Amino acid sequence: MRPSKRPSDEMRKVTLERGVARYAEGSCLVKFGDTHVFCTASLEERAPPWLRGQGRGWVTAEYSMLPRATLERTRREVNSGKPSGRTHEIQRLIGRSLRAVVDLPALGERQISVDCDVLQADGGTRTAAITGAWVALHDCIAWMKARSIVSGQPLKDHVAAVSCGIHQGVAVLDLDYAEDSTAETDANFVITGTGGIVEVQGTAEGKPFSEAELIELLRLAKLGTGKLVDLQKMAVT
Amino acid sequence: MRPSKRPSDEMRKVTLERGVARYAEGSCLVKFGDTHVFCTASLEERAPPWLRGQGRGWVTAEYSMLPRATLERTRREVNSGKPSGRTHEIQRLIGRSLRAVVDLPALGERQISVDCDVLQADGGTRTAAITGAWVALHDCIAWMKARSIVSGQPLKDHVAAVSCGIHQGVAVLDLDYAEDSTAETDANFVITGTGGIVEVQGTAEGKPFSEAELIELLRLAKLGTGKLVDLQKMAVT
Amino acid sequence: MRPSKRPSDEMRKVTLERGVARYAEGSCLVKFGDTHVFCTASLEERAPPWLRGQGRGWVTAEYSMLPRATLERTRREVNSGKPSGRTHEIQRLIGRSLRAVVDLPALGERQISVDCDVLQADGGTRTAAITGAWVALHDCIAWMKARSIVSGQPLKDHVAAVSCGIHQGVAVLDLDYAEDSTAETDANFVITGTGGIVEVQGTAEGKPFSEAELIELLRLAKLGTGKLVDLQKMAVT
Amino acid sequence: MRPSKRPSDEMRKVTLERGVARYAEGSCLVKFGDTHVFCTASLEERAPPWLRGQGRGWVTAEYSMLPRATLERTRREVNSGKPSGRTHEIQRLIGRSLRAVVDLPALGERQISVDCDVLQADGGTRTAAITGAWVALHDCIAWMKARSIVSGQPLKDHVAAVSCGIHQGVAVLDLDYAEDSTAETDANFVITGTGGIVEVQGTAEGKPFSEAELIELLRLAKLGTGKLVDLQKMAVT
Amino acid sequence: MRPSKRPSDEMRKVTLERGVARYAEGSCLVKFGDTHVFCTASLEERAPPWLRGQGRGWVTAEYSMLPRATLERTRREVNSGKPSGRTHEIQRLIGRSLRAVVDLPALGERQISVDCDVLQADGGTRTAAITGAWVALHDCIAWMKARSIVSGQPLKDHVAAVSCGIHQGVAVLDLDYAEDSTAETDANFVITGTGGIVEVQGTAEGKPFSEAELIELLRLAKLGTGKLVDLQKMAVT
Amino acid sequence: MRPSKRPSDEMRKVTLERGVARYAEGSCLVKFGDTHVFCTASLEERAPPWLRGQGRGWVTAEYSMLPRATLERTRREVNSGKPSGRTHEIQRLIGRSLRAVVDLPALGERQISVDCDVLQADGGTRTAAITGAWVALHDCIAWMKARSIVSGQPLKDHVAAVSCGIHQGVAVLDLDYAEDSTAETDANFVITGTGGIVEVQGTAEGKPFSEAELIELLRLAKLGTGKLVDLQKMAVT
Repeated sequence: MRPSKRPSDEMRKVTLERGVARYAEGSCLVKFGDTHVFCTASLEERAPPWLRGQGRGWVTAEYSMLPRATLERTRREVNSGKPSGRTHEIQRLIGRSLRAVVDLPALGERQISVDCDVLQADGGTRTAAITGAWVALHDCIAWMKARSIVSGQPLKDHVAAVSCGIHQGVAVLDLDYAEDSTAETDANFVITGTGGIVEVQGTAEGKPFSEAELIELLRLAKLGTGKLVDLQKMAVT
Repeated sequence: MRPSKRPSDEMRKVTLERGVARYAEGSCLVKFGDTHVFCTASLEERAPPWLRGQGRGWVTAEYSMLPRATLERTRREVNSGKPSGRTHEIQRLIGRSLRAVVDLPALGERQISVDCDVLQADGGTRTAAITGAWVALHDCIAWMKARSIVSGQPLKDHVAAVSCGIHQGVAVLDLDYAEDSTAETDANFVITGTGGIVEVQGTAEGKPFSEAELIELLRLAKLGTGKLVDLQKMAVT
Repeated sequence: MRPSKRPSDEMRKVTLERGVARYAEGSCLVKFGDTHVFCTASLEERAPPWLRGQGRGWVTAEYSMLPRATLERTRREVNSGKPSGRTHEIQRLIGRSLRAVVDLPALGERQISVDCDVLQADGGTRTAAITGAWVALHDCIAWMKARSIVSGQPLKDHVAAVSCGIHQGVAVLDLDYAEDSTAETDANFVITGTGGIVEVQGTAEGKPFSEAELIELLRLAKLGTGKLVDLQKMAVT
Repeated sequence: MRPSKRPSDEMRKVTLERGVARYAEGSCLVKFGDTHVFCTASLEERAPPWLRGQGRGWVTAEYSMLPRATLERTRREVNSGKPSGRTHEIQRLIGRSLRAVVDLPALGERQISVDCDVLQADGGTRTAAITGAWVALHDCIAWMKARSIVSGQPLKDHVAAVSCGIHQGVAVLDLDYAEDSTAETDANFVITGTGGIVEVQGTAEGKPFSEAELIELLRLAKLGTGKLVDLQKMAVT
Repeated sequence: MRPSKRPSDEMRKVTLERGVARYAEGSCLVKFGDTHVFCTASLEERAPPWLRGQGRGWVTAEYSMLPRATLERTRREVNSGKPSGRTHEIQRLIGRSLRAVVDLPALGERQISVDCDVLQADGGTRTAAITGAWVALHDCIAWMKARSIVSGQPLKDHVAAVSCGIHQGVAVLDLDYAEDSTAETDANFVITGTGGIVEVQGTAEGKPFSEAELIELLRLAKLGTGKLVDLQKMAVT
Repeated sequence: MRPSKRPSDEMRKVTLERGVARYAEGSCLVKFGDTHVFCTASLEERAPPWLRGQGRGWVTAEYSMLPRATLERTRREVNSGKPSGRTHEIQRLIGRSLRAVVDLPALGERQISVDCDVLQADGGTRTAAITGAWVALHDCIAWMKARSIVSGQPLKDHVAAVSCGIHQGVAVLDLDYAEDSTAETDANFVITGTGGIVEVQGTAEGKPFSEAELIELLRLAKLGTGKLVDLQKMAVT
C-alpha cells in the first residue's frame, strides 16, 4: 500500500491555472497534489550572445524553491553565492524538455525565459515544473502570434513529465515526498504529446534495477503523461 | 490627479490571506493592489551563533523578488552571486521592524525567520512585506503558544508600513509603481499599533523637501498604517 | 549628562582639511572628533554604461573602513568576497546625497567617483563622510572648471549630514560611538545649504519614537548642518 | 557508416593502467580511444560532517578537464569561481555509480574521494571516468584491506559505464566526439558486473525516441559494459 | 640622470610617524617620498586555527591600496570579489619579512595582524610597507610587554626593505614610479638590522641581468636598508 | 648528506617528453624525478582585450595541481571559488619567464596560453613547469611557423629554471620535497640559454642568508639550468 493509499498507477490531483502573473507573457500555477510551482514565460528580444546571427531563437529555464517550500526551511541559494548542483541539473532538464517541442528558427532571434519557482514541495517538483512550464510557454507563444511577432506554429507538440519509481518492490506512478525518500529506484520521464521520449533519467537509490522494471516504469509514465497532456489541452482551450 | 485616480489619502485595496503555506508555522499572502508578497514565518530551534547563551531569541527576515514579478524580467540575484544592496537594505528593514514589536527574551534561544517573496511588484513591496510579515509572525508565535513553547505574549504590538510621497507637488499615500517612479520625494514609514514610529526613511529624488512636507507625509502614513493595523486585527481573529 | 559631557546641542570639534591626496582632482580629510574619513573625488571620462547617450553625468560614492579604524580589528570585506549590507547602504546614501546638489546634465557624460575611507571610527562615519565628500566634490568640479571641462556652476548647493538621537530620554546632536551604541533612537539627516531635507533616516533601536521627538531631532540636525555648511564655506574659500 | 568506421556494436580500444599516481591509495589511467582520464582514489580518515556518528563511510567523486583536453582550449572553471552545471552533474553521477557497489557501513566512518581528471577528451569522458574510477577504488580498498583498516569485502560488485546513441538513424555503441556532437539521441548507462542497471540517462537531442529504440540502446550498453567489466577483472588480477 | 635628479645611491626622503591610529596597539605612517602607507598592528588573542595547541604565535599582514592612491583611480578589490594576485604576493611577503625577526614561541598563542593601507602610491609601496610595519609591530610588542603579556624580547632584530633597479643601464636605489615603470630590472630586498638577507626578488622586465648586476643591486640595497634601520631606531626611541 | 643521497650539485633525473597532448599546438610532459608536470601550449587568435591594436602578441600561463598530486589529498581550488595566492604567484612567474625569451611583436596580435598541470608533486613544481613549458611553447611556435602564421624566429632564446637552497648548512641543487620542507633558505632561479638571469626569488625560511650564500646558490643554479637547456635542445631536435 502506498503511503497516500493511491493505486500504483494513479497520479495525484493535478491542476493547471493560467494567467497567474500580471506582467508575464505566459504563466501557469501547476499543482501536483501538495507540490505547487509558479511558472512564467518571459519574451526577451535579445537572444543569448552565442546565438547571434544564427537566425534562430532559444528557450531557457530557471528553477528555484522558496525557502519554506519544504518541511524544514532551506537556506536560500543566493546566500551561498551560486545555484546548487541540483538546481543546475533541474533547470537544464526543463530547458531541454521545452526546446524538444519548439521550432527554434521559427522564433526568430529571440529568447523565451521560463521561470519555475516552487511555492510548495511534496516531491516531483521538476516534473510538475515541466508540465506547467509548457502551458506558460504556450501562452507566451500565443501572445507573440497575436502580435504577429511569429507566424506559423513554433510550438510543435505538447511535452509533460512525471516521476515513477519502485517503492517496496512495486512500480508506482507520480511519487510524493514520502515515497520518493524511500523508493529503491526513482525515474523521471519526459514525454511528448505524440508519445515520443524526450528524456529518461532512472537512478537506483538502493539495489540496481532490471530491464523489465525499466519497461514497467516507462509504461506507467506513458499513462501519466498521457493524462497530463489531456489536462494541458483542456487548460489552453 | 494621481495616475490611479485615487484621492491623495486613499490606499490601494489591501488583503491579507493567512495559511497559504502548508509547512510554515505562519504564513500570509499580502496584496496592496497589484503588489503581492508571499510571507512565511519559520521557527528554527537554533538561534544564530552570536546570540547563544544570552537567553533571548531573534527574528530575522529575507526578501526576494521572483524574476518576472516586474514589468520586465529581472535577473535572479543568485546568478550574480550575492544579494544586491537594495535587497540587503530591505531585508534589514523588515527584520528591524518586526523585532521592534517582539519581546526577544520571551522567545527563548530560538530564531524566527520570516521570508518575504514578491510574486508581483507594483510599488511598495517593502511596506507590503512588513505588513504581511507581521501576520505570518503572529501565527508562528500563536503556533508556539499552542504548543507551550513560549508563554505570555512575546508579540507586544502590531506593526505595519506604508510609503508616502510627493507626486506633482502633492503629498499622497501608498504609491504604486507609476507614482513611485516619478515622485519628487519618497518616504517609507513603519509604525506600531499604538502609533509609535519605528522607522522613517525619506529621500528626495528630485528637489529637497521641507519640514512641513515631512510632517504632512507622516500624517498620511499614520492614517494608512492605522487602517493596515485594523486589517491585521481582522485577519488574525 | 552625555558621556562626552557635551551639551545636548553641541557637535564634536569638526575640521575639514583639503588637498590631502596628491593625485585626486579633489580631496578632504574630515574629522568629527575621533572619527576621521579620507575623501577623494576622481574624475572619470567614462560615464557608467547605462547612462551613455543620455547627455548627463553621474556622481557615485564608495565607502570602506580600514580594519583597525575600530576598537577591535574588523575583517576586511574583500576577504568575505563582497561589500556588506551596511557598506552598500552607506555608499548608496552618500551618492544620493551628493547627486541632490549636482546639476548632472552640466557635468556632461562623465562620472565623478567619490571614495570615503574611514581611517578612524568613533560614530557618525557616514555623516562625516557626506560632509567631507562635498568638499572633495567641490574641488574636483573647481578643477574641471579651471580646465574648461565644464562651464556654469554644476554644483548647485552645499550638502552636509549629521546624526542625532535620543539618549537616556534626551534628544542629542552628533552622537559618538559611546552614545550611538546605547541610544534608544538614532537618526541621520542630510540637509542642503538652503535648509532643504535630502534624506532622513530614523530608526528606533529600543522603543518607538513620537512625532514630537522626530521634530526635535530635526531641529537639532538643522542646527548642526548649518554649522557644518559654514565650515565647508570657510574650507573652500 | 560511423565516422570511425566501427561496426555499430564495437567499442573503441579500451585500456586500464593501474598505479599511475605515486601517492594515491589507488589510481588508474583509463583510455577509451582518444579519451584519457586520470583517476585517483584517496582515503580520508575524516568522513563528511553530515555523516558523523552514523557508523558508515562515504564515496565521493570530483571531475575536471584540463583546459586543453579539448580541440579548442576551454577556460578553467576556477577562473569563473565555481564548477559548471555540467561538472556538477557528472561528478554526482560518478559518485552515485560507485556508491551503488560499495558496502558503506563496511568502510567505517571514512571517506574515499575519487578524482577523475580528463587529460584528453574525445567523447564519453563520464563513462570512461566511471569505468576507470572503479579500478582506482578497487585498489584503494585493497590497500585498506592489506592494512586491516577494513575487513570482509566492502566492494560488492563491478560497475562500468558506456554511452550509446542513435546516429543517422542507427543505434551505436560508445560514441566518440564526432558522433556525439551529431547524434539524434544520446544515452549513458551505468551497469554492474551482474547486469543490474544503476543509472540510465537518455536524452533526445533532436527528435524524440521510441521505446523500441531505448531497448536497443540498452542491449548495446549491456554488451559494452560486459566487455568493460572483463577488462576491469583482467586489470586488477 | 634619474627622473628625480637623485644620485644613483640616494633614497627619497623617508619619514616614520608613530601613533597615528587611536585604537591600534601599534601604528606608523611611513612615507618614502610621495609613497605613503598607513600601518597598524593589532593584537588578537585568538591564534589562527591551524596553530592551536602548538605553543607559539603568529604574525600576519594584509595590504590594500585606496582607490585613488594612484594616478588613475583603481577599482576596489572588494568589488571583484577577491584580492588580486598582486595583493596576495605582497601581503605574503610582508608577513614573511616580519616573522623573520620575531620569536614566535615568545608571543604565546596569539596573533598580531599588521595592516598596510596605501594612502598614496609613487612606487615602492611594498618596501615602504615592510619598513613601516616593523615600527607598528615594535610598538604593539612594547604595548604587550608593558602589560606583561609577553616577557623577554620577542622582537629579535630590525627588518627593512627597499627596491633597487637597473634604469637606463645604471643601478639605482629606491625607485619611484617614473623609474619603476621603465626600469629594465626591478629587485626588492628585505634585509635585517644585522645585514642578513630575508628575501630577494629580482625580475628582468626587459633583457636578463647578469651576476655582476645582481651584486651591485644588493650593495645599494644594503646601503638603503642600513639607513632605514637607523631611521627605525630613531623613531622608536 | 641529502635525504636523496645526491651530491650537493646533482639534479634529479630529468626527462622532457614532447607531443603528449593530441589537440594542443605544443605539449611536453616534464619530469624532475617524482615531480611530473603536463604542459600544453595553445594558440588563441584573440589577443587579450587590453592588448588590442598594439601590434604585438602575448604569452600567458596557468598552473594547477591535481588534488592527489601530493602526499595528502589537497582540496580543488575551484571549490574555494578562486585560485590561491600561491597559484597566482606561480602562474605569473611562469608567464614572465616565458615572455622574457619571446619577441612579442613577432607573434602578431595573438596569444599563446601555456597550461601547466601538476600530475605529481615532489618539490620544484614551478621550476619544472617553466622548463617544460618552454618545450611546449617551442613546439607551438614551430607549428605556427610551419603554417606561415609567423615568420622569422619569435623565440629568441631558451629559458629554464631550478630551485636551490641551503639545507643543513649546505648549498644544494634541485630540492625535492623532503629537502624543501626543511631547508633554511629556498631560492628559485630562472636563467636563459645564454646565462642571463630572468628572475631570482630567494627566501630565508629560518635564519637570514648572506651575500656569499646567495652567490653560491646562483653558481649551482647556473650549473643546473645549463644542463636543463642541453636537455631542451636534445628534446626539440
